[in-house]
Amino acid sequence: MDRRTLLGGSGVLLAAQALSLKTEARAVMTPVLAEDQHFMQLAIEQAKLGDFPFGAVIVRDGKVVAEGFNSGKRLHDPTAHGEMMAIRHFLENHSPQEFQDATLYTSGEPCVMCMGAIIWCRFKRMVFAASISELATRIGQIDITSAQIAKATPFLAIEITGGVLSAEAMQLFPEKQ
Amino acid sequence: MDRRTLLGGSGVLLAAQALSLKTEARAVMTPVLAEDQHFMQLAIEQAKLGDFPFGAVIVRDGKVVAEGFNSGKRLHDPTAHGEMMAIRHFLENHSPQEFQDATLYTSGEPCVMCMGAIIWCRFKRMVFAASISELATRIGQIDITSAQIAKATPFLAIEITGGVLSAEAMQLFPEKQ
Repeated sequence: MDRRTLLGGSGVLLAAQALSLKTEARAVMTPVLAEDQHFMQLAIEQAKLGDFPFGAVIVRDGKVVAEGFNSGKRLHDPTAHGEMMAIRHFLENHSPQEFQDATLYTSGEPCVMCMGAIIWCRFKRMVFAASISELATRIGQIDITSAQIAKATPFLAIEITGGVLSAEAMQLFPEKQ
Repeated sequence: MDRRTLLGGSGVLLAAQALSLKTEARAVMTPVLAEDQHFMQLAIEQAKLGDFPFGAVIVRDGKVVAEGFNSGKRLHDPTAHGEMMAIRHFLENHSPQEFQDATLYTSGEPCVMCMGAIIWCRFKRMVFAASISELATRIGQIDITSAQIAKATPFLAIEITGGVLSAEAMQLFPEKQ
């Protein structure tokens, strides 16, 4: 475990601490699992292929069943974020009911659009690397976190883990000039 | 102008008043325009075709250029909300740059997913009928308004008008049993 991994771990703690202040939260902040770094590395590999460096994988029964990377420029579609592409690819081969025991790994914390999609799909768990506040130092973000959206959702309790390999995900972005 | 239209008008005022308290808001609440009822009626006609009664139209240069209705069940796609379908149909025939002088009319205030998509597409204006708080009396909603999302977006000032024909849009939903 190198220094960057340790930094990723501290990110998770910060997120969990921030949320624990809100007792009514429906988002369940969960610890990093043994397999999370492996699958997040695959999401980061997807990000390297993107028009903007964001990527995602969907995992079910311990296997990657769909992948996606930001394709906004090549598809001329501003909604083609990494998470949305992974969801579209998942739906080509799976029924929507199968989201309910799936985990989405994404190199960047989902924006409101993607987090909304993740909730409507009823994913069991979502794991992100770089947080929205980290990403906002590099690229324009809508300043609402995935935990805030989960907390505002009365009909679903999604598990969220943040900060896994966040330093690696941030390295995909050039420093602001 | 009938009673329901007047109610719709008061909805706009309430939304504008609530937002005016937040001076840093990037959402620009705009008054109802002469053509809004006509285009909202078309969005409501779309809603009548939906798997759930939500519909949208996209207007550019005074003409409807794309339509959409909720197709979640028939497409087996939980992200196929009315607004997302209208955006997908728009992109089949238009470049994303053309969103920048377009208005989206939707029978229900956009959820976080759809409002995120509307922002990433950089629509000039969004007009809704029934508000999220009204819709939540009939069907599960994520409790974050379109104005809250617009306010959290530093890179875009989208115009928002709410409450146009909201009573007509609400009539599409059965009363809760």
